[in-house]
Amino acid sequence: MARLKDIVEYCDQRTHREEIADFPGAHNGLQFENHGDVTKIGAAVDAGLVPFTLAAERGIDFLIVHHGMFWNPPTAFTGVHRKKLLTLFANNLAVYGSHLPLDCHPQIGNNAILARKLGLNVDGGFVRYEKHDIAVTAPAIEDRAHLRERLKGLFPETLICIEAGPQNTKRIGILTGSGRSAIPELRERGIDTFITGELKQEHFNIAQELEINLYLGGHYATETFGVCALAEDVADKFNLQWEFIDTGCPL
Amino acid sequence: MARLKDIVEYCDQRTHREEIADFPGAHNGLQFENHGDVTKIGAAVDAGLVPFTLAAERGIDFLIVHHGMFWNPPTAFTGVHRKKLLTLFANNLAVYGSHLPLDCHPQIGNNAILARKLGLNVDGGFVRYEKHDIAVTAPAIEDRAHLRERLKGLFPETLICIEAGPQNTKRIGILTGSGRSAIPELRERGIDTFITGELKQEHFNIAQELEINLYLGGHYATETFGVCALAEDVADKFNLQWEFIDTGCPL
Amino acid sequence: MARLKDIVEYCDQRTHREEIADFPGAHNGLQFENHGDVTKIGAAVDAGLVPFTLAAERGIDFLIVHHGMFWNPPTAFTGVHRKKLLTLFANNLAVYGSHLPLDCHPQIGNNAILARKLGLNVDGGFVRYEKHDIAVTAPAIEDRAHLRERLKGLFPETLICIEAGPQNTKRIGILTGSGRSAIPELRERGIDTFITGELKQEHFNIAQELEINLYLGGHYATETFGVCALAEDVADKFNLQWEFIDTGCPL
Amino acid sequence: MARLKDIVEYCDQRTHREEIADFPGAHNGLQFENHGDVTKIGAAVDAGLVPFTLAAERGIDFLIVHHGMFWNPPTAFTGVHRKKLLTLFANNLAVYGSHLPLDCHPQIGNNAILARKLGLNVDGGFVRYEKHDIAVTAPAIEDRAHLRERLKGLFPETLICIEAGPQNTKRIGILTGSGRSAIPELRERGIDTFITGELKQEHFNIAQELEINLYLGGHYATETFGVCALAEDVADKFNLQWEFIDTGCPL
Amino acid sequence: MARLKDIVEYCDQRTHREEIADFPGAHNGLQFENHGDVTKIGAAVDAGLVPFTLAAERGIDFLIVHHGMFWNPPTAFTGVHRKKLLTLFANNLAVYGSHLPLDCHPQIGNNAILARKLGLNVDGGFVRYEKHDIAVTAPAIEDRAHLRERLKGLFPETLICIEAGPQNTKRIGILTGSGRSAIPELRERGIDTFITGELKQEHFNIAQELEINLYLGGHYATETFGVCALAEDVADKFNLQWEFIDTGCPL
Amino acid sequence: MARLKDIVEYCDQRTHREEIADFPGAHNGLQFENHGDVTKIGAAVDAGLVPFTLAAERGIDFLIVHHGMFWNPPTAFTGVHRKKLLTLFANNLAVYGSHLPLDCHPQIGNNAILARKLGLNVDGGFVRYEKHDIAVTAPAIEDRAHLRERLKGLFPETLICIEAGPQNTKRIGILTGSGRSAIPELRERGIDTFITGELKQEHFNIAQELEINLYLGGHYATETFGVCALAEDVADKFNLQWEFIDTGCPL
Repeated sequence: MARLKDIVEYCDQRTHREEIADFPGAHNGLQFENHGDVTKIGAAVDAGLVPFTLAAERGIDFLIVHHGMFWNPPTAFTGVHRKKLLTLFANNLAVYGSHLPLDCHPQIGNNAILARKLGLNVDGGFVRYEKHDIAVTAPAIEDRAHLRERLKGLFPETLICIEAGPQNTKRIGILTGSGRSAIPELRERGIDTFITGELKQEHFNIAQELEINLYLGGHYATETFGVCALAEDVADKFNLQWEFIDTGCPL
Repeated sequence: MARLKDIVEYCDQRTHREEIADFPGAHNGLQFENHGDVTKIGAAVDAGLVPFTLAAERGIDFLIVHHGMFWNPPTAFTGVHRKKLLTLFANNLAVYGSHLPLDCHPQIGNNAILARKLGLNVDGGFVRYEKHDIAVTAPAIEDRAHLRERLKGLFPETLICIEAGPQNTKRIGILTGSGRSAIPELRERGIDTFITGELKQEHFNIAQELEINLYLGGHYATETFGVCALAEDVADKFNLQWEFIDTGCPL
Repeated sequence: MARLKDIVEYCDQRTHREEIADFPGAHNGLQFENHGDVTKIGAAVDAGLVPFTLAAERGIDFLIVHHGMFWNPPTAFTGVHRKKLLTLFANNLAVYGSHLPLDCHPQIGNNAILARKLGLNVDGGFVRYEKHDIAVTAPAIEDRAHLRERLKGLFPETLICIEAGPQNTKRIGILTGSGRSAIPELRERGIDTFITGELKQEHFNIAQELEINLYLGGHYATETFGVCALAEDVADKFNLQWEFIDTGCPL
Repeated sequence: MARLKDIVEYCDQRTHREEIADFPGAHNGLQFENHGDVTKIGAAVDAGLVPFTLAAERGIDFLIVHHGMFWNPPTAFTGVHRKKLLTLFANNLAVYGSHLPLDCHPQIGNNAILARKLGLNVDGGFVRYEKHDIAVTAPAIEDRAHLRERLKGLFPETLICIEAGPQNTKRIGILTGSGRSAIPELRERGIDTFITGELKQEHFNIAQELEINLYLGGHYATETFGVCALAEDVADKFNLQWEFIDTGCPL
Repeated sequence: MARLKDIVEYCDQRTHREEIADFPGAHNGLQFENHGDVTKIGAAVDAGLVPFTLAAERGIDFLIVHHGMFWNPPTAFTGVHRKKLLTLFANNLAVYGSHLPLDCHPQIGNNAILARKLGLNVDGGFVRYEKHDIAVTAPAIEDRAHLRERLKGLFPETLICIEAGPQNTKRIGILTGSGRSAIPELRERGIDTFITGELKQEHFNIAQELEINLYLGGHYATETFGVCALAEDVADKFNLQWEFIDTGCPL
Repeated sequence: MARLKDIVEYCDQRTHREEIADFPGAHNGLQFENHGDVTKIGAAVDAGLVPFTLAAERGIDFLIVHHGMFWNPPTAFTGVHRKKLLTLFANNLAVYGSHLPLDCHPQIGNNAILARKLGLNVDGGFVRYEKHDIAVTAPAIEDRAHLRERLKGLFPETLICIEAGPQNTKRIGILTGSGRSAIPELRERGIDTFITGELKQEHFNIAQELEINLYLGGHYATETFGVCALAEDVADKFNLQWEFIDTGCPL
């Protein structure tokens, strides 16, 4: 057993919470406080009723989420909002949210981990938000067909390939989750191949015109890495168990 | 015992909730849902931890408030925010907020009741917000000294008198709570005496220059009428008891 | 051969162009003027270099598109922008854009056609933009499994199913392209099953919490209907041939 | 007798006018120019018709005010606006406004003087506006009851006490005039007792929830210090007499 | 001699002051109040120090201006601002501003009078601001060369001709003062010849591309008509003399 | 013959394009790309249909303009917009826009050249936009009458003189094109004589009140210098011919 206060402090420091500005609505940090003790760590992508219920069933009392509770702040504690809070209170389940800090962290960030899993060596960043880059670049290490195979292995259910760029790729950009904000910078960065989670339909045409390869692994699927890595770190540090709460989101 | 659903529906209709636009942050209506049954009605001006705790101690499970829970929406359910929600859950206490609908209602609105208590006959409205007037006017029925006495009787602790207008008043304006939005309309409405709850320091000078009598009864003290009247109505309708939760706010 | 002017006038009237307000950037109507005569009609979803080139190769000189040329207005006629314009000039290819008018049209709109293809009878509209509803509702005619089969037939490559709602569906909502703007209205409209083209990852969680079935057919795939229907109408009217320019967009 | 130009220059320097950004509408500095000579200095809180008239009656030809003439800029020189200007012209009365510079000045600022009168030693600032702190902090030197007595002595008519904090106070914050902007910072600064001029009703509930002692001395009453101190300084410097114009404002 | 109050009331009615919304900064109506009596009327285009001084020299005590005193509201009554007010007080000179009401009035408006002077019959309006058209249209009555001659007669010093339209003009648009807001509407109104006061350099190129004749008579020169007509009306009505204060502005 | 790419690169460097922020809509740099080779340089003030046509007639294939193509971005390539692009494509005419960089350049900027032509020695800058001054100052070298003569020589058709300042000028400000943004700074800079291209009618009154001499040479006429100087530089560098395309704009 560990104290909530210590775990929150550790998470804040590990993710550099205070130094990293985030989008309005993120409100990183402790989002729901429990009684004060923690016995088991959980990781989930979304702060939803289903993840909360599953976490409670598995005895988790500290749940790390990537998408927190306040993107659409409640304006009445009724219906689903009430159920979510009641689930948290009833199961003494604390919720900790960490968004951009878990995207851009050089060790436990979504981008960094995805690059490692693809065997790539990150050599720079792009898509600056306030003072931090939230996407990474890496030199290509093999041709497009091999890269596609690796991605297919990581995201077997969700991978979408739009191969409008060169077969012999030179430079790769990675931005997990939504890749929208990276699109305007790709050409000027010399990126010919962009790996992300999710894009909108309009980007298909843009990819054709920019002659860029796009690989979409799924917003959810590309953002499970960071919460798991932080959960594992916390669990190690405080000698607790941890578990990933998978909702199988296909988007 | 009555069903929460029926009480909420009754309150919505009695206050014409859907027809009256309110300020952003008001979010009138059921703000916190309880298990579904109600046994005792409460009325309070503010949705605060102290009123919630006092209401719970007195066995109230449906609390009507004038200033609801979302003027500053929570962005972390920790500390005081958590305590408030826990108090509500633990005591099965529902919260119903009604702001402008309880200011401008012709029977159970704060302005209408205050006018009645002063023996005044409302003959018009002013300070329009969207489609409704939220302040009232009435012809004077006696001179300034007598009016001041009546007000002193109603607001013995909080009354502030700024008598820069005529002794023989002609026309009275009333706006409970903050009177700020009424100031620019006073002269054009022929109002020489304005009764309100609260004003800012800058209005003293304005009163002197406009040659208007200002009587400030206290924001809190002038806004206890509406919530009590609605609570009494609900209690009558559903054959329940009701109680006012007084916090003694001097402002 | 027909005159460009007559065709544009016909399209404007057929789509009620002037009566339907659209998003900034749509700029519906003739977007690129050719020499003045038209011999073959084309239909495409996007106004991109690849569709323009394919249309030119097939002898098309009047291309109807759903997503026009000005969502991101050019600020230098260089590179791809220059190539697009040169392709249009060199091939005497006129471009006509029609966005919301081809979503909400009761006969040749994307929603109406998709509903017909699913055997559904539209009985109302929702998601109002200015003065027109851009989504439709219909009573369900069979259970979820059968509906899914029909959708799989229409969108074999792109269909994503998120079945968080009831098996016995009651009420269906349809909004082709991006379904985002429909989400807040689903519950209040009694819609338990929503068919759209594209949603963002955050809507998976919302679907689970609202207990709604979501079927995503692909933004592109659900928006090929309207441009084809208008092209066919124009071709019939002016006794010309028409062709659909398919780019195989997987999004 | 002194030259207006020299007095204005002295006031500008003494208050660091150019270095201190102020709210829109403050327009610190010489606001109304007289013929060019000054024989007697006045100090008033508000730039109103009554203070102007009183100052003229007492032979003042240079009036320092805290709340200047342009918070609501005139859009017609008629009625009261005309009377004010005519009073100034007819009595050759110059007006000098100084708002935040007379709040935050370490010697002649309202906060600094109030702290001195309470025997407190200022050890820091808070509530930053642009580049300057406009509120001060000080360690407590005695318990709450003694502090209350001192305040009662300074503000006998206007003091309002909301004692929701500890009896043994540790840390005191002071912001004369409106205290609203200080509220969000109190807890993070470790302030358990806040002395200010004026607050709104909503802050009573906040005080209860934050467990903070609030003492409200009156907006006007807490802002007489700075203008008097500057007037005295100017009078000393130029060997003139000075007088405070009291309007007895109860707010 | 007449009473200021009656003259202001007459001007308000004659110009339909309350019904005509104007740009922010216009503040039409009495802008500076004198002692209450009027003996001589003046008219000027601008509310400046020179026109005020000239008007005072000629014994005027009610000056009608087109461009009033508040386009740039004063934020210190020093220097020129002080001089202007002092000139008004010292000479008991009232100022009455009327902007759009004196542009769009069908009898005494700048546009209507200019059309009459050119022998044109106004048959419509354009450039709507809130609920009123502020420009007029008229069918051409002669060719371009004759029109130019008439204009040269009216504006001998200031006329600028940009003749990029047809020699045989069909339809004329008139907007005195700045013609900028009319430009986007010219072609859709079928106007081939536009008479205005002032345009910016960018409109030369636009005129060439739209193939429109532009005649610029000078902002000042085209806006002397309305103030004179109102002054004459007032003088007649109240049996007073009137005079135009000409500053010879070449712009 | 030279390569377009090299000429664009030279122009970018010569004008410090990347370092100088410009107004939205300027979009300095290559605005329309031709086939890639350049044989003759042109200079024009405006990117209009007439200048494009004249340039094409004279065999120009690289046209430098001061006011580029995107101040009002096209939203349909029809009518005049189509004609302009077709003229460029058909004549293989590239367009290069340079706005503020050609105003503020110390050698080839409009202000610097105008100062030289007047025999003035620039000793400072004012009217800062982002990080650069876009106007210049110079000590006067002769009295007003002589300066007026020199200006009359440079701008014989367009010069407007508003001589409300001193006859013995001390300090001169220059801002070619629109002088509007310089007006608020003139007095504080000690400028008694301001030379610019274009002002609005309201500035006549301001000049009288500030007691400043205004000389308006014409927006167009004062901005022909920079494009010509750059064209000449480019022509020299690449051993090409150049020509100025004069449209005789009187504004």
